[in-house]
Amino acid sequence: MTHDETAPAPPRSTLVITAHAGDFVWRAGGAIALAASRGERVTIGCLTYGERGESAKAWRQGKTLEEIKGIRREEAEKAAATLGAEIVFFDAGDYPLLATPELTDQLVGAYRKTQPDVVLTHPLEDPYNGDHPAAARMALDARVLAQAIGYPAEGEIIGAPPVFFFEPHQPEMCGFKPEVLLDITEVWETKRRAMECLAAQQHLWDYYTDLAIRRGVQLKRNAGPNLGLPHTTYAEAYMRPYPQITGELA
Amino acid sequence: MTHDETAPAPPRSTLVITAHAGDFVWRAGGAIALAASRGERVTIGCLTYGERGESAKAWRQGKTLEEIKGIRREEAEKAAATLGAEIVFFDAGDYPLLATPELTDQLVGAYRKTQPDVVLTHPLEDPYNGDHPAAARMALDARVLAQAIGYPAEGEIIGAPPVFFFEPHQPEMCGFKPEVLLDITEVWETKRRAMECLAAQQHLWDYYTDLAIRRGVQLKRNAGPNLGLPHTTYAEAYMRPYPQITGELA
Amino acid sequence: MTHDETAPAPPRSTLVITAHAGDFVWRAGGAIALAASRGERVTIGCLTYGERGESAKAWRQGKTLEEIKGIRREEAEKAAATLGAEIVFFDAGDYPLLATPELTDQLVGAYRKTQPDVVLTHPLEDPYNGDHPAAARMALDARVLAQAIGYPAEGEIIGAPPVFFFEPHQPEMCGFKPEVLLDITEVWETKRRAMECLAAQQHLWDYYTDLAIRRGVQLKRNAGPNLGLPHTTYAEAYMRPYPQITGELA
Amino acid sequence: MTHDETAPAPPRSTLVITAHAGDFVWRAGGAIALAASRGERVTIGCLTYGERGESAKAWRQGKTLEEIKGIRREEAEKAAATLGAEIVFFDAGDYPLLATPELTDQLVGAYRKTQPDVVLTHPLEDPYNGDHPAAARMALDARVLAQAIGYPAEGEIIGAPPVFFFEPHQPEMCGFKPEVLLDITEVWETKRRAMECLAAQQHLWDYYTDLAIRRGVQLKRNAGPNLGLPHTTYAEAYMRPYPQITGELA
Amino acid sequence: MTHDETAPAPPRSTLVITAHAGDFVWRAGGAIALAASRGERVTIGCLTYGERGESAKAWRQGKTLEEIKGIRREEAEKAAATLGAEIVFFDAGDYPLLATPELTDQLVGAYRKTQPDVVLTHPLEDPYNGDHPAAARMALDARVLAQAIGYPAEGEIIGAPPVFFFEPHQPEMCGFKPEVLLDITEVWETKRRAMECLAAQQHLWDYYTDLAIRRGVQLKRNAGPNLGLPHTTYAEAYMRPYPQITGELA
Amino acid sequence: MTHDETAPAPPRSTLVITAHAGDFVWRAGGAIALAASRGERVTIGCLTYGERGESAKAWRQGKTLEEIKGIRREEAEKAAATLGAEIVFFDAGDYPLLATPELTDQLVGAYRKTQPDVVLTHPLEDPYNGDHPAAARMALDARVLAQAIGYPAEGEIIGAPPVFFFEPHQPEMCGFKPEVLLDITEVWETKRRAMECLAAQQHLWDYYTDLAIRRGVQLKRNAGPNLGLPHTTYAEAYMRPYPQITGELA
Repeated sequence: MTHDETAPAPPRSTLVITAHAGDFVWRAGGAIALAASRGERVTIGCLTYGERGESAKAWRQGKTLEEIKGIRREEAEKAAATLGAEIVFFDAGDYPLLATPELTDQLVGAYRKTQPDVVLTHPLEDPYNGDHPAAARMALDARVLAQAIGYPAEGEIIGAPPVFFFEPHQPEMCGFKPEVLLDITEVWETKRRAMECLAAQQHLWDYYTDLAIRRGVQLKRNAGPNLGLPHTTYAEAYMRPYPQITGELA
Repeated sequence: MTHDETAPAPPRSTLVITAHAGDFVWRAGGAIALAASRGERVTIGCLTYGERGESAKAWRQGKTLEEIKGIRREEAEKAAATLGAEIVFFDAGDYPLLATPELTDQLVGAYRKTQPDVVLTHPLEDPYNGDHPAAARMALDARVLAQAIGYPAEGEIIGAPPVFFFEPHQPEMCGFKPEVLLDITEVWETKRRAMECLAAQQHLWDYYTDLAIRRGVQLKRNAGPNLGLPHTTYAEAYMRPYPQITGELA
Repeated sequence: MTHDETAPAPPRSTLVITAHAGDFVWRAGGAIALAASRGERVTIGCLTYGERGESAKAWRQGKTLEEIKGIRREEAEKAAATLGAEIVFFDAGDYPLLATPELTDQLVGAYRKTQPDVVLTHPLEDPYNGDHPAAARMALDARVLAQAIGYPAEGEIIGAPPVFFFEPHQPEMCGFKPEVLLDITEVWETKRRAMECLAAQQHLWDYYTDLAIRRGVQLKRNAGPNLGLPHTTYAEAYMRPYPQITGELA
Repeated sequence: MTHDETAPAPPRSTLVITAHAGDFVWRAGGAIALAASRGERVTIGCLTYGERGESAKAWRQGKTLEEIKGIRREEAEKAAATLGAEIVFFDAGDYPLLATPELTDQLVGAYRKTQPDVVLTHPLEDPYNGDHPAAARMALDARVLAQAIGYPAEGEIIGAPPVFFFEPHQPEMCGFKPEVLLDITEVWETKRRAMECLAAQQHLWDYYTDLAIRRGVQLKRNAGPNLGLPHTTYAEAYMRPYPQITGELA
Repeated sequence: MTHDETAPAPPRSTLVITAHAGDFVWRAGGAIALAASRGERVTIGCLTYGERGESAKAWRQGKTLEEIKGIRREEAEKAAATLGAEIVFFDAGDYPLLATPELTDQLVGAYRKTQPDVVLTHPLEDPYNGDHPAAARMALDARVLAQAIGYPAEGEIIGAPPVFFFEPHQPEMCGFKPEVLLDITEVWETKRRAMECLAAQQHLWDYYTDLAIRRGVQLKRNAGPNLGLPHTTYAEAYMRPYPQITGELA
Repeated sequence: MTHDETAPAPPRSTLVITAHAGDFVWRAGGAIALAASRGERVTIGCLTYGERGESAKAWRQGKTLEEIKGIRREEAEKAAATLGAEIVFFDAGDYPLLATPELTDQLVGAYRKTQPDVVLTHPLEDPYNGDHPAAARMALDARVLAQAIGYPAEGEIIGAPPVFFFEPHQPEMCGFKPEVLLDITEVWETKRRAMECLAAQQHLWDYYTDLAIRRGVQLKRNAGPNLGLPHTTYAEAYMRPYPQITGELA
């Protein structure tokens, strides 16, 4: 945004901040694949591997902490590559993920480095998993700090990129109300392949396929019956904590 | 939407449903002027002239009910023409504007006739003026009824056009939270001229100019400091009761 | 407010609008007695006698509708006199009390006649008794209409008197949050005597005595321990739907 | 409840009040089948056939209003019989279903006749279909009126049966938060067969099967992993507008 | 839950987590006594003695910190014994009680040791006492952590026991809405005796007796007038942050 | 409050707790000037200078951290003197301002020293600036701790002074609803002069002048048209997190 205006504009940049290694696939895989398919840059920041809280099967198999982290990392890297995104791991420790000034500062660095045009993260409430709100809180705090010229971190300050909260596992229990329905039909196969990289959670493949279809039904219901949408439309739902800025109501 | 697909698409259509004759100018004049400036069709439906509740000065001057209606109608017609919109009056009687099945049915007709791509109306709460929520309630009910092939009214059924609530006079007391900030800078002079058609309410010209500037400051604050926005940006704020449908997060 | 400014100011006026004949005693008897004790004028408007919904005992005794209305009227008149207030009955029929334009219009007349400085009514939610919200809705609508010079009713227009919602029987189920705690200790005996005028509901005498003590405990807790308040402080709780206007924060 | 205490207690009674003929199947079929399977009595009151708002296919086929009502009635009767319930039609006219004192009075009669121990109806918000909140409002109002000995209707007064709101089509847009998850696994096949009675809406069979599985996943997540629940658990979600009364926390 | 299924099931277990030594008596004494009366096991975890924030009288008498802790501990032990429960003290320091990972970890241990079927704690808001929400937050966090096999603590993982928030001192100011009304009539005398163990707070004995009667009145109002409930019914109110799991609507 | 009752009462005391050096001017300058004009004592506690987050211009000019702190301090001292208040700086570091027990303890000391009759601070939500809620949270926590005789800090315990939240920059995005409108017309010129002490933020002078006029318009609308208020009335808006204690409804 503050770069030399005579240079060609860099591609649009999306920053995804998540608590655990798998979150970006289930909840925002479509948005990521869509942006990548348009030639944009997407960076995923995973604060933890989900090694304690979301790897029950591996623990039952007697794997060690380091082994589990390795498995989760490899799966996440494959899924990110499938979607067309870069991925960065902060290894901050999960269950509980603690919100600290140091980790928030690292996120300020990520904002200044990636100069995002769009930010995706968890919603601020989740009574089933405290790591998700902790990640979201730090993501939002760091976004504000990264805007301040007085905040001592490397890189240029950022603007005020829009933030989207992706859908939690039990939306109604997290105060989640779909405010944006994103049509991901054209990249659906890519999202499905990325989900299939997460071998240990096969039961979720169909669960999130069903969810995408249901959100697609709602998208069609909110768009009118005759827009030429395909019989099966896939969608993801998001919330906006900040107002949309636009030049046209639509 | 259901028209012959070989014919050239008609221009986009916006339907504005308001309680009183002046509401569309103060609250949505920028959105109307923007749409008109793009060659789109805008239809304003005024359910009443605001003859009892918003014409105190004329009553104090001893004017009759019919005289007041005439004055309000003439002013509104001038303002609509300035903005580039058509205007229709339902003359349903204000203070109180009563929500009736008959008036709702007339609005179904307006929806089917104008086939709107966008709908603008009041928010659903206003402790200072019950006519506003009554108009909004009927506007929303009629929009749903107009979608049903089984509802007996002339014209083709409509899709599910997005709805935007424009800003009330005391936003915080009406549960109004800006969810969309619309940049109206390029049509600002047009909106100002339209406001000046409402001669009896001169004290509001500056009030709504200040509001547009304040919403412009917020637009800039939510968009980042370096987007090349002009020093003075004018904006209008809206809410969305239904989710946004999109193919790209931005 | 708009009266001749050289005349002596009339005493302050309070208008209480309730659904049933007994409501004003249990819920606002302290406020009414306090105002009366200061020499102010208080007018109670009872939209119904509560003849169907709040007179179970009389129905079980085989009394007729007219007999029940008579009993309730007499009790209410005694209680009002005890508190020092006038009382007016609209006999609009309860269970259900229907909100109509005609009854709202009668209330506009009451506003213009009493020119209230303060308005007391029910809160807008009550899942146990639909008559209460119906009364409150009409009380609020009429207050707005009575302000408009264009509304055709006798009497001078009114200003914008503050409104207070008194406490419902099950406050937490009605969204009731105490926003104002009124110290009624000095008129407590009067309120108790007024309650005792309602002979058929003896079980409520102690219930509302306990409530007044509990609200008094909360008053003391919100006021600091050392204000010289008496050991037993009696209080009533209210909400404010409109902002307080003041010249001093306290 | 007030019947002769020496007589054998009648079976428990459930009253379901819905706007349209199909609602009870999709949204509460499991609860109905469960109650019936325990030998209880279930009565379904359909205020309309859904002839205008939920029969698009039939209208497109050129059927008349009476034909459509007949089809819907027949389908609903089959589905009710499959579930083991009685069904009553009020034929009040849909799209819009208008809330009237007369229809509310008919519902008072239904309450007094069926003496329900449990009441099921729609939630109070639905921005996609105004008939649903209208039905719920009347169902709640009538329940309160039916408790009053002073309300002039046939039959004995009722107690205060618990009310459950069943799940709307777009729960997050209706303020719907699952407060009760009902395990319907043992009657799942019955519910599925009842859904298949609604031939015109075949696309919803799978939609509501998926929903039941998803609510089942949530049921298991809220019950702990090792309760011996079957691999696939089916559930329905409900809200409670009134507090639960119990002798044991569980 | 994961124990050997051939062994006799252990009795049901309730875990109560509170900020201060007296909280469990006033707010949940009835639920505790009821569970104990059914032969179940109840464990009370007091995070602090309430030595600074809830012992004003002892401070005024010039007692030392250690003396005050001793008094509070002794009173709480007597009250717990009266109710039939075990009690554990964490001595974490009150006013303020700080939420720390270490204390949360101790609570994980308590969950795994007691394997609760039911959890009772404070609600998440209390503008009059920050220790209460701090305790609740840790209680909820620890419950989620204790479910994860990957979380390193002794003992078996737990299921997902239901949580109940007990009633705060000023319910309406804490967003407290009664969602469950528990009939404690049969153990009322036990609760009263437990309250009387807290000698320093004699003024609260009657306060909480009155509250129990008022909640009992509401219980009867929500249960219908003819259920054979005793003239004076005592009750406690609770909220549920997680959905109820059930096999029958009632 | 607990001082010798034979001594003359000290003047009323107001404590203002803010995150940054300029906040008290824009948001509460009128309330401060009003209290000072009545001979009351006002103490402003600035937790930070706003050196990082609200001094962009100085950073762009290449000033050092210490220089910036010095500039901000000097400006704030001038503004406080203009308003008639004392000012205290805690220099706790901004962007982010971290909520710590140590800083909260310092605030307890400030409460006990100033014995406030009124407290002003930020609201608890602000998605644009996390320092504001952090300051408010500590201000509220410290107020509760300072009331406890058992809390180890110097000075006498305080009562429970009312708290007012002043208006944030984007009120609708912070859940801010005006609950109190304070007429500041008589000290407007003083507030304007105080704003002009903040030389670096000249663009805010007109912004907050416009805001004061807009709140003044609302004050008049909520007070009735004929109260003899001046043509231009200036006002500030506040929220109350605790109930108002009063002896008269007005």
